[in-house]
Amino acid sequence: MDRGNGPERLVAGVDVGGTKVAVLIVDDHDNVCSRLTVPTILNGPESTLAGIVAAVQEAVGRAGADISDVAAVGVGVPGRVDTETGVVRSAVNLGWREMPVGEAISARLGVPCFLENDVRMAAIGVQRYMGSSANRNIAYVSIGTGIAAGMILDGHIYRGAHGLAGEIGHMIINRDGKRCPCGARGCLETVAAGPAIAALGAEAAASGTPTILRDYGPVTTEAVYSAARDGDAAAQEITRSVGCYLALALQQLIVAYDMECIVLGGGVSRAGEAFLQPILSELAHLRENSALTTEMIQPDMIRLLPPNYEAGPWGGVMLARG
Amino acid sequence: MDRGNGPERLVAGVDVGGTKVAVLIVDDHDNVCSRLTVPTILNGPESTLAGIVAAVQEAVGRAGADISDVAAVGVGVPGRVDTETGVVRSAVNLGWREMPVGEAISARLGVPCFLENDVRMAAIGVQRYMGSSANRNIAYVSIGTGIAAGMILDGHIYRGAHGLAGEIGHMIINRDGKRCPCGARGCLETVAAGPAIAALGAEAAASGTPTILRDYGPVTTEAVYSAARDGDAAAQEITRSVGCYLALALQQLIVAYDMECIVLGGGVSRAGEAFLQPILSELAHLRENSALTTEMIQPDMIRLLPPNYEAGPWGGVMLARG
Repeated sequence: MDRGNGPERLVAGVDVGGTKVAVLIVDDHDNVCSRLTVPTILNGPESTLAGIVAAVQEAVGRAGADISDVAAVGVGVPGRVDTETGVVRSAVNLGWREMPVGEAISARLGVPCFLENDVRMAAIGVQRYMGSSANRNIAYVSIGTGIAAGMILDGHIYRGAHGLAGEIGHMIINRDGKRCPCGARGCLETVAAGPAIAALGAEAAASGTPTILRDYGPVTTEAVYSAARDGDAAAQEITRSVGCYLALALQQLIVAYDMECIVLGGGVSRAGEAFLQPILSELAHLRENSALTTEMIQPDMIRLLPPNYEAGPWGGVMLARG
Repeated sequence: MDRGNGPERLVAGVDVGGTKVAVLIVDDHDNVCSRLTVPTILNGPESTLAGIVAAVQEAVGRAGADISDVAAVGVGVPGRVDTETGVVRSAVNLGWREMPVGEAISARLGVPCFLENDVRMAAIGVQRYMGSSANRNIAYVSIGTGIAAGMILDGHIYRGAHGLAGEIGHMIINRDGKRCPCGARGCLETVAAGPAIAALGAEAAASGTPTILRDYGPVTTEAVYSAARDGDAAAQEITRSVGCYLALALQQLIVAYDMECIVLGGGVSRAGEAFLQPILSELAHLRENSALTTEMIQPDMIRLLPPNYEAGPWGGVMLARG
């Protein structure tokens, strides 16, 4: 597929999530011409697609431009994507299965469309954000309902043999642990993703332990971090445990793949320092006394994605530029 | 550095180990013109270097050729190597530190010399061996005195941000486990490398458990696998535990990096099926009930390096060809 090379100068980055679609229209000087976030339409695969196309059209209009001014669109999808053909193999939350989304968007907009897995696309956005300070070997790790990584290795996005690279939520961290929705036992997601944190919070609230988590209706992940921030011991025990497991997974990624930098994002990471500090303190413990891991795991290499940086849409912009 | 492009048609692959130096002289039709293995000279950094140069010269002579027939030399070194400059940063077993080995070999032989870490070089040899069946995303994992991986990602050797990629022997697998020589606790090497296996064997022999390991003088890794093969329950318990830990580490590598194939080599792997089967049976257990890991971890993707295939020297040959 050729990228347009006429007078059009705009590109669109589109991050499709299970709840919302975020669009960024950017000119070739990296000026944002418009940004738009709309709810994801979820009443049928076709409507979802039509909603995305309409969102791009509206964002282009808000930029005071015409679709003919747009050179290309980069779209991130939460699921498994064939980047060569633009076919979404499966995106469970969107109800897409073997759907030629790239071709459909391209045909409806009249603009080349490049598709990517959403976490990998966000990793490209993170690479842009890091600039020359660290952009050759980085991982973007999203911790939310699930846990996944997008990896830039030697400067290029890494997809793996079957397009499944980055499924770190299913690294088995505790062989005899809880059953994961994937079917295996003890996956990282069973101890460190949003639902696991909320479940641990609810357990603490239901137990005899004194905890302010009892004052919350349904105990959410946010509630657990908020209570931990307020000094609640039961909540802190949970956030410490989550930090330990995530640190272990990051240690394993780092010694195997020698990263420059790992950026943490996703819903759970929005708890900020209350989320980050337990990870850093466990990493400090793990590298204690080891020259090798001290060299490989520098204290400043684990960072939070700035909450106002739109990694996904910016990754789409970079993808559209090729 | 230019590779010669005159009438010379031979290349040399050189695998430098802590005990021996193996040289392969190969023509451009992949015919082996000579192979030579000599002990590594270990009485000083300079002697070690001179011994390697002499080994290449002798191997070339045995091939009935002259060094002027050799287009390039690829050399693998057990340590940290700057592949751009040919400087060995550190190779503890050879007593090399900040030593310009590539330049020195090149000057003495009058032939371009390309340096690489030994396990990574062996991974290139494995990539050649796999041919087109699987050569884009593979890991070669060497399990011997230490444990390390050489990785081919998207068809290219992967070195990481600081040339330290593949240090999987120091993945922390058991946070509260034994202290590793690296200083950290619970590294994979503390539970699955050769010295750990021999130590577990010696413990079993010294304990009250009935085991034929008592009949061995010092209990070696080979003894443990041999006893396991003979049905000794204590030895089988050890090989099962080693298999569990290695399977866990491989599972983590595979779900994160979506490999086509992982080839296992190194001294411990020479125990063959007695070594491989416990790993495969634990992997089968781990992927039980999980569609995702079943897809990512195919039963035939974990293989043993054929014991007579010279992965290191062949990797050197490929390196020399560029």
